[in-house]
Amino acid sequence: MTIILHHEQIKKLASLNENLIPIIENAFVSLSEGRATTPPIMRLDIPEFHGEADVKTAYIKGLDSFAIKIALGFFNNPSIGLPSSNGLMILFDSKTGALKAVLLDQGYLTDIRTAIAGAIASKHLANLEVSNVGIIGVGMQAQLQLQALMLVRKPTNAFIWGRNKGKTSIYIDAMKNKLNINFHQCLNIEELCEKCEIIITTTPSKEPLIKDEWLKKGMHITAMGSDAEHKNELDPRIIKSCNLYVPDKQSQTNVLGELHHAIKKEIVDKNKKFKELGEIIKNPNLGRQTKNDITVCDLTGTGVQDTAIARHTYDIANSNI
Amino acid sequence: MTIILHHEQIKKLASLNENLIPIIENAFVSLSEGRATTPPIMRLDIPEFHGEADVKTAYIKGLDSFAIKIALGFFNNPSIGLPSSNGLMILFDSKTGALKAVLLDQGYLTDIRTAIAGAIASKHLANLEVSNVGIIGVGMQAQLQLQALMLVRKPTNAFIWGRNKGKTSIYIDAMKNKLNINFHQCLNIEELCEKCEIIITTTPSKEPLIKDEWLKKGMHITAMGSDAEHKNELDPRIIKSCNLYVPDKQSQTNVLGELHHAIKKEIVDKNKKFKELGEIIKNPNLGRQTKNDITVCDLTGTGVQDTAIARHTYDIANSNI
Repeated sequence: MTIILHHEQIKKLASLNENLIPIIENAFVSLSEGRATTPPIMRLDIPEFHGEADVKTAYIKGLDSFAIKIALGFFNNPSIGLPSSNGLMILFDSKTGALKAVLLDQGYLTDIRTAIAGAIASKHLANLEVSNVGIIGVGMQAQLQLQALMLVRKPTNAFIWGRNKGKTSIYIDAMKNKLNINFHQCLNIEELCEKCEIIITTTPSKEPLIKDEWLKKGMHITAMGSDAEHKNELDPRIIKSCNLYVPDKQSQTNVLGELHHAIKKEIVDKNKKFKELGEIIKNPNLGRQTKNDITVCDLTGTGVQDTAIARHTYDIANSNI
Repeated sequence: MTIILHHEQIKKLASLNENLIPIIENAFVSLSEGRATTPPIMRLDIPEFHGEADVKTAYIKGLDSFAIKIALGFFNNPSIGLPSSNGLMILFDSKTGALKAVLLDQGYLTDIRTAIAGAIASKHLANLEVSNVGIIGVGMQAQLQLQALMLVRKPTNAFIWGRNKGKTSIYIDAMKNKLNINFHQCLNIEELCEKCEIIITTTPSKEPLIKDEWLKKGMHITAMGSDAEHKNELDPRIIKSCNLYVPDKQSQTNVLGELHHAIKKEIVDKNKKFKELGEIIKNPNLGRQTKNDITVCDLTGTGVQDTAIARHTYDIANSNI
C-alpha cells in the first residue's frame, strides 16, 4: 500500500536533529564508494514565469527502496505571497518498483537534508574549537544551516550578513528565539571573514561574495548556495588557494558548483580529482591536516541525500502506524 | 489544493475514446512547432532486479500546467505475480509550481496516451480503406493499440502474431469479447505481412521482426515497442526503403527508436531530417502521397503526451467535483 504523507505530518516525523547526521553521512559514503547510481539531474525551465523544476534520484545498491525527488523553484512567487520553493519526494521499492510513499513535503525534506549536509561538512572539516561562525544570507537555509551547525560545534557568536538590512534584523530576531548564542549583524562580508572561523554561504548569488584575500588561517567555508551553472558565491581563486577543497559530488561541482567557475577561469585544471565528502567521512585522515589549514566544502545537493531522507521519513511513519 | 487520484478513479475518468485524439494531436503539434520544452528522459537502471525508472516531462508554452511522469518497468515482477509496469504522473501549475494533482495511475495513463498515439499515426498515414490489420505482440499495448485503431479505421480482420502460441490464443479470446471483427492467429510474421495493410508492432524485441522484403505497396507500419537503445522491431533497411518515415520526436528516435538502428548501421545518414508526426497532423499534405506509398511511424513516447493526458484527467476530475 502506498503511504501518502502531507507537509505537516512530515514536519512532525522528520525534524532537524542529530539522528539525521549518520543517515546522510552514510549516503555520502555510498556515493563516493561508487555504490550509488545517480543519473544526471533533469531540469525543466519555464522562463516566462521565472520557474524551474529539477528532478534528482539515486539508487543505493543493497537498499530496499529509492527516491525520486522533484524540486520546484518559482522565483516570482514571493511577489504574490507564495514561497518560491516547492516539491515532493516519491519512494519506490527497489525490487518491484512498487510505490511505497508519496511525501508531499513542499521541499521541507530537501531543506533538512541540505542543512544536515552542511553540519557534516563542518563536523569533518572545521577545527573542533570554534568561537565565531559567520552566516552569509538570511533565507531559510541561513536559519537551518546555523541550527544544524549547532549539532556539531558550539560557537558562542554568530555573525550575520544579508544584502537587505531589514531582513537581516528580522533573521537575527527570529534566531535569537531558537539558539542560545550571541548574534551580530555585519556591515560587510570582509568584516564577517575577519571575525569567523566557520563561514557558511547560503545565497543564490551570481557574483562571488568572499574574496580570496579575505581567507584566514584555520578557516572553514561551506558554500551551499550554488546549484546551477550561473550561481557563484566564492572567488574562484579560493578553490586553488585553500588547503583542501571538498566537493559533495565532483561530477556535479565540475559543472554546477564553485569548482565550475574555477575550472572555467582556468584557475583549476578540469581533470584535477578532489576527494569527495564521502571519502573524508569514511577516512578522516584525508581531511584537515593542521589547525591552520583552510578548508572549503562545495555542496550542490545530491540524489543520495534525497533517497536517504525519504527512506528515513518512511521508516518513522511506518513504525508509528 | 492538491488532488490525489487513485488508479480505479483514473480508469473511470479517462477511458480510451475518440475525445483523446485531438488532445494528443495538439500535443504532437506543439512539439513539432517548437512550443514545447522537453528535457531528455531521465533514466535510472537497477540491473540487480531487472528494473528501470524513466522520468519524462514537457512544458507546453501557454498552458497553465505541466506534468512530470515517472514510469517504472521491473521485468522480474511477472514471475512473482505482479505487473511489470507501474508509475504515476504529477501535475504542476506552470505559473507557481504549485502541485495540482498526483495521479497514481500505475502506468494506466501512459498505456492510454501511447495507444492514442498509435491511432493518430494510422489516422494520418494509413490508407482510408483497410480490411486487414496485423498486430505483433500480445501484451497490454497489443490490446490497446487495436482498440484505439478502431477509433480511426474499420478493418474487418485482425491478424495476430505472438511469440507464445498459448498467450496469443488468450489474447484473441479476450479481444473477441471487446471488438466485433474477425481474429486470425498467424503462424509467422511473414504471413501477417502478406495479409495486412496496417501493421502495429508492440513488442520489446531486441531483433528486427519485420523484414524489408516483406513490405507491400500501400502498407502502413506503426512501430511502438522500442523506447530504449537496444530495442528494435523493424529491419533497419525499412527506414530507407519506405516512402515516408515519420518519427514522433526525431531527437529521440535518433537515439532510442527504429531510426537509431538505421543510423547505426549507416543505412540512413545521421543528419537526415524527417517530418515529425506533429508536422503531418498540422499539414496533411506532407503525409502519404499515393495509395501505394509505404509509410512507417516510429513512436518512442514523448513528455508532451504525458502533459496532455495528465491535464485532461485533471480537468475531468475537477469538473466532477
